[in-house]
Amino acid sequence: MQKEQMTQILQAVAAQEIDVDQAQKKILNQGFTELDFAKIDFDRQKRTGYPEVIYGAGKTVTELKKIIFAMLEQNLPILVTRVDAMKAAILGEQFPTLHYNARAEVLATKPAQELVGKIAIVTAGTSDLKVAEEAAETALFLGNQVNRIYDVGVAGIHRLFARLDEIRAAQVVIVIAGMEGALASVVGGLVAKPVIAVPTSIGYGSNFGGMTALLTMLNSCASGITVVNIDNGFGAAYSASMINQIGVAK
Amino acid sequence: MQKEQMTQILQAVAAQEIDVDQAQKKILNQGFTELDFAKIDFDRQKRTGYPEVIYGAGKTVTELKKIIFAMLEQNLPILVTRVDAMKAAILGEQFPTLHYNARAEVLATKPAQELVGKIAIVTAGTSDLKVAEEAAETALFLGNQVNRIYDVGVAGIHRLFARLDEIRAAQVVIVIAGMEGALASVVGGLVAKPVIAVPTSIGYGSNFGGMTALLTMLNSCASGITVVNIDNGFGAAYSASMINQIGVAK
Amino acid sequence: MQKEQMTQILQAVAAQEIDVDQAQKKILNQGFTELDFAKIDFDRQKRTGYPEVIYGAGKTVTELKKIIFAMLEQNLPILVTRVDAMKAAILGEQFPTLHYNARAEVLATKPAQELVGKIAIVTAGTSDLKVAEEAAETALFLGNQVNRIYDVGVAGIHRLFARLDEIRAAQVVIVIAGMEGALASVVGGLVAKPVIAVPTSIGYGSNFGGMTALLTMLNSCASGITVVNIDNGFGAAYSASMINQIGVAK
Amino acid sequence: MQKEQMTQILQAVAAQEIDVDQAQKKILNQGFTELDFAKIDFDRQKRTGYPEVIYGAGKTVTELKKIIFAMLEQNLPILVTRVDAMKAAILGEQFPTLHYNARAEVLATKPAQELVGKIAIVTAGTSDLKVAEEAAETALFLGNQVNRIYDVGVAGIHRLFARLDEIRAAQVVIVIAGMEGALASVVGGLVAKPVIAVPTSIGYGSNFGGMTALLTMLNSCASGITVVNIDNGFGAAYSASMINQIGVAK
Amino acid sequence: MQKEQMTQILQAVAAQEIDVDQAQKKILNQGFTELDFAKIDFDRQKRTGYPEVIYGAGKTVTELKKIIFAMLEQNLPILVTRVDAMKAAILGEQFPTLHYNARAEVLATKPAQELVGKIAIVTAGTSDLKVAEEAAETALFLGNQVNRIYDVGVAGIHRLFARLDEIRAAQVVIVIAGMEGALASVVGGLVAKPVIAVPTSIGYGSNFGGMTALLTMLNSCASGITVVNIDNGFGAAYSASMINQIGVAK
Amino acid sequence: MQKEQMTQILQAVAAQEIDVDQAQKKILNQGFTELDFAKIDFDRQKRTGYPEVIYGAGKTVTELKKIIFAMLEQNLPILVTRVDAMKAAILGEQFPTLHYNARAEVLATKPAQELVGKIAIVTAGTSDLKVAEEAAETALFLGNQVNRIYDVGVAGIHRLFARLDEIRAAQVVIVIAGMEGALASVVGGLVAKPVIAVPTSIGYGSNFGGMTALLTMLNSCASGITVVNIDNGFGAAYSASMINQIGVAK
Amino acid sequence: MQKEQMTQILQAVAAQEIDVDQAQKKILNQGFTELDFAKIDFDRQKRTGYPEVIYGAGKTVTELKKIIFAMLEQNLPILVTRVDAMKAAILGEQFPTLHYNARAEVLATKPAQELVGKIAIVTAGTSDLKVAEEAAETALFLGNQVNRIYDVGVAGIHRLFARLDEIRAAQVVIVIAGMEGALASVVGGLVAKPVIAVPTSIGYGSNFGGMTALLTMLNSCASGITVVNIDNGFGAAYSASMINQIGVAK
Amino acid sequence: MQKEQMTQILQAVAAQEIDVDQAQKKILNQGFTELDFAKIDFDRQKRTGYPEVIYGAGKTVTELKKIIFAMLEQNLPILVTRVDAMKAAILGEQFPTLHYNARAEVLATKPAQELVGKIAIVTAGTSDLKVAEEAAETALFLGNQVNRIYDVGVAGIHRLFARLDEIRAAQVVIVIAGMEGALASVVGGLVAKPVIAVPTSIGYGSNFGGMTALLTMLNSCASGITVVNIDNGFGAAYSASMINQIGVAK
Repeated sequence: MQKEQMTQILQAVAAQEIDVDQAQKKILNQGFTELDFAKIDFDRQKRTGYPEVIYGAGKTVTELKKIIFAMLEQNLPILVTRVDAMKAAILGEQFPTLHYNARAEVLATKPAQELVGKIAIVTAGTSDLKVAEEAAETALFLGNQVNRIYDVGVAGIHRLFARLDEIRAAQVVIVIAGMEGALASVVGGLVAKPVIAVPTSIGYGSNFGGMTALLTMLNSCASGITVVNIDNGFGAAYSASMINQIGVAK
Repeated sequence: MQKEQMTQILQAVAAQEIDVDQAQKKILNQGFTELDFAKIDFDRQKRTGYPEVIYGAGKTVTELKKIIFAMLEQNLPILVTRVDAMKAAILGEQFPTLHYNARAEVLATKPAQELVGKIAIVTAGTSDLKVAEEAAETALFLGNQVNRIYDVGVAGIHRLFARLDEIRAAQVVIVIAGMEGALASVVGGLVAKPVIAVPTSIGYGSNFGGMTALLTMLNSCASGITVVNIDNGFGAAYSASMINQIGVAK
Repeated sequence: MQKEQMTQILQAVAAQEIDVDQAQKKILNQGFTELDFAKIDFDRQKRTGYPEVIYGAGKTVTELKKIIFAMLEQNLPILVTRVDAMKAAILGEQFPTLHYNARAEVLATKPAQELVGKIAIVTAGTSDLKVAEEAAETALFLGNQVNRIYDVGVAGIHRLFARLDEIRAAQVVIVIAGMEGALASVVGGLVAKPVIAVPTSIGYGSNFGGMTALLTMLNSCASGITVVNIDNGFGAAYSASMINQIGVAK
Repeated sequence: MQKEQMTQILQAVAAQEIDVDQAQKKILNQGFTELDFAKIDFDRQKRTGYPEVIYGAGKTVTELKKIIFAMLEQNLPILVTRVDAMKAAILGEQFPTLHYNARAEVLATKPAQELVGKIAIVTAGTSDLKVAEEAAETALFLGNQVNRIYDVGVAGIHRLFARLDEIRAAQVVIVIAGMEGALASVVGGLVAKPVIAVPTSIGYGSNFGGMTALLTMLNSCASGITVVNIDNGFGAAYSASMINQIGVAK
Repeated sequence: MQKEQMTQILQAVAAQEIDVDQAQKKILNQGFTELDFAKIDFDRQKRTGYPEVIYGAGKTVTELKKIIFAMLEQNLPILVTRVDAMKAAILGEQFPTLHYNARAEVLATKPAQELVGKIAIVTAGTSDLKVAEEAAETALFLGNQVNRIYDVGVAGIHRLFARLDEIRAAQVVIVIAGMEGALASVVGGLVAKPVIAVPTSIGYGSNFGGMTALLTMLNSCASGITVVNIDNGFGAAYSASMINQIGVAK
Repeated sequence: MQKEQMTQILQAVAAQEIDVDQAQKKILNQGFTELDFAKIDFDRQKRTGYPEVIYGAGKTVTELKKIIFAMLEQNLPILVTRVDAMKAAILGEQFPTLHYNARAEVLATKPAQELVGKIAIVTAGTSDLKVAEEAAETALFLGNQVNRIYDVGVAGIHRLFARLDEIRAAQVVIVIAGMEGALASVVGGLVAKPVIAVPTSIGYGSNFGGMTALLTMLNSCASGITVVNIDNGFGAAYSASMINQIGVAK
Repeated sequence: MQKEQMTQILQAVAAQEIDVDQAQKKILNQGFTELDFAKIDFDRQKRTGYPEVIYGAGKTVTELKKIIFAMLEQNLPILVTRVDAMKAAILGEQFPTLHYNARAEVLATKPAQELVGKIAIVTAGTSDLKVAEEAAETALFLGNQVNRIYDVGVAGIHRLFARLDEIRAAQVVIVIAGMEGALASVVGGLVAKPVIAVPTSIGYGSNFGGMTALLTMLNSCASGITVVNIDNGFGAAYSASMINQIGVAK
Repeated sequence: MQKEQMTQILQAVAAQEIDVDQAQKKILNQGFTELDFAKIDFDRQKRTGYPEVIYGAGKTVTELKKIIFAMLEQNLPILVTRVDAMKAAILGEQFPTLHYNARAEVLATKPAQELVGKIAIVTAGTSDLKVAEEAAETALFLGNQVNRIYDVGVAGIHRLFARLDEIRAAQVVIVIAGMEGALASVVGGLVAKPVIAVPTSIGYGSNFGGMTALLTMLNSCASGITVVNIDNGFGAAYSASMINQIGVAK
């Protein structure tokens, strides 16, 4: 821990145990940032309730086991995203306290803390559910209340209007849509809350794996909309949680 | 006129004035298609009320003068699109019977015929007016009633709902929008009429000169929407007129 | 049903059974749009013959079974697009009244109603048949007569000319082409009917999964052409049906 | 005002002045959404301090004059973005109470209300100042305290570290960068606050008018970052203000 | 055969067996183009030695069998491109007179005619051989002498110089290259013969499936280069054959 | 001249004037390629009639003057492409023997030699004339007969059929088209001659400066088509000339 | 200077003038990185001869004047890139010791130090000279010997071979090419030195402002090539200088 | 061996065994370049320690066996990149002296020579290890010392600072990063050594297979960075080796 180490060095200087040159060299050489920033990160985690998150895609079961084991030893809560059912089955046997959301492909500790605020997660269609559930699980894990409002896309816009009050009751709104992604603009025009838009790769033809929805959301004529990467339910929930808990912290 | 020419040739054969070989050669060589198709085109124009249209961009005033003069001599109605104000001023002096719509950049004969059916032209913003007016002038020129419903984009969707009955009263709906182009999907989900969507180049950043709105419209989750090229108000009105007059012709 | 509910509420007000505040709250809270629009949708379906359509891609057999079952219970006609042969076999056993078009990958109720008007479906090559058959099945399902004119691409343009009269006899023309998609322009230049162009993903190299044909069709030098998304046979037929039945309705 | 109008209608029903049918027709026909939503918008404006904003690009001085005049008559605060110096000079004479930020190209009423919370606006280079000042003026106009931290890009990362405490002291951070846009990731990795990233069109070659910075920001390896359109300083500040004032409202 | 049919019709007219109206109708209705162009195609085939070619990709073995059978019945030579080894094995049993080039994935009749002229087929690497062999088999099938000059890419440009005389001895040069495709420019700068460049999809990263090589070839600083689609060995050979046989025909 | 120099070196070896080591060093060091290839280029020019061509874009009048002067001194024929009217006026005064084609923006010596063979230059529209005339001037300059067949695009395909015999009478066909570029495919399907397709930058919206026409031409369903860069009339004519003169040379 | 400041703080601690807590706070708060890194930067500049460089594009003459004045006061050498002739004229009057390379658009102090090593700057055409001269001026400014080898593109590859020995004599080679950029691959295949490739925006049509050359260079089949951004002559020279001086420093 | 062959020819001339003409013909015909350049390549290999490298992707085990066998016969060191584990197992049995790095997918001779200089290989994440190990194995094979500094991406920038001294101690730095690739800019801003940036295809959504990281690196605001193709660990190490050994050679 750098601060303590620096204290010791300075005390040694004050005590004339080491001279100024030696002290200076120690301080400069010892890599303040590494220890310092690690501490800050550690503090932030405790303070903000944002623990480390594991991106499961491309990691083997063995690698995941090791990481989860190491974190559990430190009593850290676990959130693994993009874990397919096969891997989850094996990990589930090993770590029975974790629950698996198969649609979200998320493996996580149940949130122990009280859920606060409210994040509305709104999807255009049923095909967007995988991304929506990843967002929901992430938001819950980070301690937020979640209201799922699914399948209210603009092809049948009355479904959206029917649930507008619920959406307006949230502190932050996550809008998830594929195809042309128009739902984000419509919601952005109807609510006075920050909207985080998540394009999904749902669609075909000139959809280009979600690029069309992404561009739609970036060019929205409604104000108050920011955008994350295609299919990035986790990222949307992470930002939404930060925003939701600003209100809570006060 | 090929048919008449063919008649003459065949009559000459029947009258033994020319032999079979000569006749065959004449028929094959004379360019049947040229004359034949010209005739068909001419017929179509009379029948459907679709006269020749002049694309003004890239043509000089002199070139435009010649074409207009030639067409007026044949008593043909005139529609020139994409004529800037400078050219229009000169042409207006020369051809005082033509009227100029400065916002549409269209110079045209006043439609003499009775206007039929109804085409609704709906825009998202006021910046889309140039394209909308090109569509409106084209539709009027082709003999259709037009209902202009402007500035009803999804950022303030109540403006759209307020005029939904008018939109539903049309036979065909043209939806014109730039930026993210979400209006087409919303309208497509609310009306049971063919929707022709026109992306406009209005926007900035990742709008890419209208590409974003174009992709949005092609990927719409609502059914019943077809799309034309960016800023192509003329093309949308031309297709809309064909559709509108199907109903009329019955 | 909102209208009836509103009637009841208003009658209750008139009868002094509830006061103005209660009535106002009921009307605003009950989700007018949800019920109202649902009613409109229901009306439209009856009126225009456009029932709900099921997009089969990405849905499990179980999900499809549930949806079909629910719709059949309401005596609704069934159209499921993008159902592969495997799923279709299982569903076919369950729902023997549905017929399956293997090339179209469409599972549908046989259209009971009389077929009206005429939609010509024109393809450039034999590889475009899957999309064409999806369009054909959709058009039939929606109650339109269909004329299939396949494999008349511009590499051997005489095949097109030989069937031009048939194409011209339709009310609407759907042109389906992959590779460079030039057929849409050629047809658009030869017929005086609305043309809906469908780019297909057939091709290789710089074809980019249909993007080349899509751009070709959007930039057509011929007028009267509108475009739908790549491989979207269903969407083309849906719009074509709307147009075809304008004439019929009169 | 729909609610009041509805009250009147219902009172008339209760008073038997009109019958149920008349009442129903009035309620359905009068465009509930139009008035209702307008009311909501008006409420929101009062409640959240978010007045209408005028996008100056593409509007003539005359058009701007009319809009500003109309808004001032209603005692509304004015924010016009993307007004060039020429237009601003003319408008400034007409409306001397407005101040003009030449670098931001923003013309606005001075914010009368007390500024709350804190939004840090961080830029990579001096070329990003135009966008940053648009964000700053917007944030101030909407009632937020602003801390400008400019020219701290990663080419000389020590400049960023020197001001990290200030950045961490804000409730929301706007990071503005062109070229490769790496600053957003670095800031995102160092602060525990929501980061809104704004790519700018600054750069050359394969920068593609800001597309490179946009993609960088969307793909950031750091969590807690959301993105707005290229050069959209206004949009970033609008969202940031919503977020900043969540904390304030509590 | 239209010409003969027309002769018969005209003879019937001359013989007064049918009247002018009947004749005219017959001529117009019978699809002149269909028969006429079919005849021209047939003539061209005989005259230029360019028989029909079958694109094997996407066709089933059964479909291929039918087409080959039908063509063999008419004594037509067979060229099937893009036939994988599996299909080729089955077809080979059925049609033992055809030979299969496994690398080219081409199944063809041995060219009976004398080979004329000379087409040089030059590749940058050994990975381009599949495309090169498709070109070679096509060129041979169409009656051209072929000189294969493989693996002479610019990373070791001395290999190219060593075989420059051979390349210069051809009438037409096909240059096939993937990755950055620079070989086409180098060859184009060294030979005074028409060069047809074929980009291949060989490469990785920002190669984009051959797009990079395609763009390179289109932008070549050397004159005399034309380009075909990515991996289109057949198309290059087809054009090269036309060119090569211009010289022969004289 | 390397060959002569090598002769001298070898003679010196034979005469024992220098030893083997010295000779070897001289041969390896002297830069054979420079002199050798320069000679080959010089030979080729005389042999094939392909003199140096000057690309005028981006060169100042002074630079052009110098180059032209130097070439005229060597009695070389002059072809300067992409010279705007302003520059051409000045150069025309200086070099009165050169003629200027204003539409082609080409400044050239009149071809003295007899024109041979036949190149057909076919355009879709009148907007393609600039590119077509650049091709025509280049083809003439290189000694080829040219047949201009302009404005026969597929929107009115009968115009093409009327001139098909002329097109078929050429040895090579250059097809020039903007917008969707479909003409190349249609011509390719109708003639048995090599077709060189030139996409032009004519169009708007999703035309992307000619990219759409380029992709169309590369993906043509007709065989026998090769493609050059957008607006590259010179390149097309250069290749066409090479092909046309194969026939002539025999 | 942080080191000195830290020394003072530590001395104060040693002298018991301040306590450990105060010292620690001072060290952490004062922005160690800012001063520390500035120091490192300053050291590096002295040590490596890499002074600050000014990017002139987008800066006003006044801004440039201020920066140059400030740097000259510190006796720093000046290198301003992308200064157009107009600005340069004004700055030249003010700062007569700076020389201006009009083609490079670079304004710089004459390098006083001895030039070391050798950087070869190779261009494909004369149009690449602006970028090449920017590279040359930068390389000279940074103290490197430069060998300019211009206009040796692959369309006349003998020009390259003639100067191969000179290229091979350099420590690093910068290859600058537009259009298809093939020169980088050819040079990379012929020399055993690090090659830095610079794509230029020279070209037209599908060149896409240098993108084609950029992709070519990234996909080069030759090893030993790295790439910088389009037109980035400065960046190439900066990296080349670092490499060249590795050899020198030893 | 050309040099020897030329010696023999020249000796024969000196010995009057052949005359000057015969000698000249032999020298010119025998493919000087082929042998000459091969010799140069061979020399370079000995001189620079850069032997031939085998690109394993797309080659069969049999092909690889043949090549390795041929090279081992000539006592050449072996480096095969992109060999999957399956192939490697078979080749490992056949050639037990080669070692296989499974993560790198590289099969190589152990470097016998003394390792010189120092190349730092820095990665952003653990997912970049495959590319990093390919670079490391290549660098070692070419005789360079390597320092692996993995998983120091900007999401936790303190990890980078902790190892900055190590990075600065290298002669050349390879920075490998996927996702947004920001690490290259940060490292470039902190070290005074040439940086070679390698984008990796790690990421999802709008990452586009590494294109985003590639663009980021090309547009870096830091100087001294050059870039290679996506995932091209081999290429980066090859260039880095050339640079590293400049210092060594002195």
